[in-house]
Amino acid sequence: MKYGYAVDIGGTTVKMGLFESSGKLIDKWSLATDITRGGENIPADIGNSILADMSNRGIAREDVMGAGVGLPGQAHQEDGTADAVNLGWHRFPMIERLQRLTGLRIVTDNDANMAAKGEYWMGSGKGFSSLVLVTLGTGVGGGIVVDGRCMSGAHGAGGEIGHIPVNPSETRQCGCGGHGCLEQYASATGNVAIAREVLSESREPSVLREAEKLDSKVCWDAAIAGDMLAIEIADRFSDYLARGLAAVANTVDPEVILLGGGVSHTGEPLIRRVTEFYVKYAFPACRGTPIRRAALGNDAGIYGCMFSLL
Amino acid sequence: MKYGYAVDIGGTTVKMGLFESSGKLIDKWSLATDITRGGENIPADIGNSILADMSNRGIAREDVMGAGVGLPGQAHQEDGTADAVNLGWHRFPMIERLQRLTGLRIVTDNDANMAAKGEYWMGSGKGFSSLVLVTLGTGVGGGIVVDGRCMSGAHGAGGEIGHIPVNPSETRQCGCGGHGCLEQYASATGNVAIAREVLSESREPSVLREAEKLDSKVCWDAAIAGDMLAIEIADRFSDYLARGLAAVANTVDPEVILLGGGVSHTGEPLIRRVTEFYVKYAFPACRGTPIRRAALGNDAGIYGCMFSLL
Repeated sequence: MKYGYAVDIGGTTVKMGLFESSGKLIDKWSLATDITRGGENIPADIGNSILADMSNRGIAREDVMGAGVGLPGQAHQEDGTADAVNLGWHRFPMIERLQRLTGLRIVTDNDANMAAKGEYWMGSGKGFSSLVLVTLGTGVGGGIVVDGRCMSGAHGAGGEIGHIPVNPSETRQCGCGGHGCLEQYASATGNVAIAREVLSESREPSVLREAEKLDSKVCWDAAIAGDMLAIEIADRFSDYLARGLAAVANTVDPEVILLGGGVSHTGEPLIRRVTEFYVKYAFPACRGTPIRRAALGNDAGIYGCMFSLL
Repeated sequence: MKYGYAVDIGGTTVKMGLFESSGKLIDKWSLATDITRGGENIPADIGNSILADMSNRGIAREDVMGAGVGLPGQAHQEDGTADAVNLGWHRFPMIERLQRLTGLRIVTDNDANMAAKGEYWMGSGKGFSSLVLVTLGTGVGGGIVVDGRCMSGAHGAGGEIGHIPVNPSETRQCGCGGHGCLEQYASATGNVAIAREVLSESREPSVLREAEKLDSKVCWDAAIAGDMLAIEIADRFSDYLARGLAAVANTVDPEVILLGGGVSHTGEPLIRRVTEFYVKYAFPACRGTPIRRAALGNDAGIYGCMFSLL
């Protein structure tokens, strides 16, 4: 029996998992991400947690295939360092330290890529040879998998589809410095920005005007309930997202497109609406590409980390 | 000494080449593409040309690695057939016939992918591990190469970057049925459409108003000479193209972007202008990705065909 450890490092928690090589998740747990002292303690926290788990279960080092690590930034396998702005890492020797501490093989990748690999292996992408995962969360992230390999790109920007330009006339600036990036519309925050815009453009009544807190879920619930302005918001959101998906499909032409992240919890109504707009923008050959909801939720990352060890 | 035949099938001519496996082009020639009878004669024309060349040079079949064939459509290696609307082929047994006639191994791909592989192997992409080639001709085509392999996509639409939506407010329809596709602006015909639009929007004088024939070259020459309206045309063209390139870069993040096709003959002035707009739209990590002119011109395809045999 071979085991693997999965480590999905986020800004607030580190999600960890112990897998069998078959893909069976034996156990999962999480640690708080200690971002004090420039994220200095993170490798030791993770390493000790793995060593403690091996000891508790009586797992020998030779039975562990390694630890797959996803991180919110970029890993440099060649010199064992990683960059992650939110953790305070710049060329921080994360891989090297974790390797030294645990004696295990360490395989790393960007967290969005890990999630895409997880969905490819055990999620909604199972059975497809290629996929694009688009994560609709606070921002819009993404990962592209072709034949089991992630397209990380020459500068780690492969799958950074949140920054595809979709609106040349936008005046607001995106966090990346650009204008009219997909993330400005198809993220949870983008959804709210669209809502504010639509509500301010008209005087029509809407349940959203009385909403205690205007968020993505409230907007979609109102649209599903038939609120006219909420439907307009859902349409604009779906239209922008579809433009980005069409750009990606016309470039890499995956077998399936998966939507994940918080906003995707709306499920079928969102998938259906986005698909309607997607068909308008996509090239005929890939117009029929299915758009589905990602299946693994927050566990996609740890599945991908384990898959990276195989 | 090993040899390979390269066959780049176009709508009017078939470009053929004999290569050494080192990449040395020994000879090239072309045949007229016989599109009568639904393109029925094409495999025999090509096969006989290869057999005649082998016989003339005294090349034995065992010294030939095969024939790499690029075609303006989609090949189905699994059943030996090909689709190519312009040649009249629909599930036409091209590969099977050419194989039977010559006794050689036949390797096929889309012509745009072959050109991208050619540039990767022996052109402006030499020394890079990944590239995107964008061909600015009558239409806008493209090919993506990563680690020597083309991203053909699940439906052969990989690299169909001419149909990335770049202008949501376009009312004119693209040949693909969409609206606002990159090809509607960044092709030779798109360039002329932009020119007509700019000239009709103002009454400013311009040498273009007196041009005998308004084409892409005339427009760029006038822009280089300082004609204000021509500069406006060049800017709009470059702006649209840059949006498409940014979408591609944020998706696959290649090491280099190459521009080929007739419009790219303008050279440095075009490259410089497009780069200025690209920097505005690209994600920071890939903002510095070099944009260069493709090197092999019309021979890119045959180089790619040969590379496919290696």
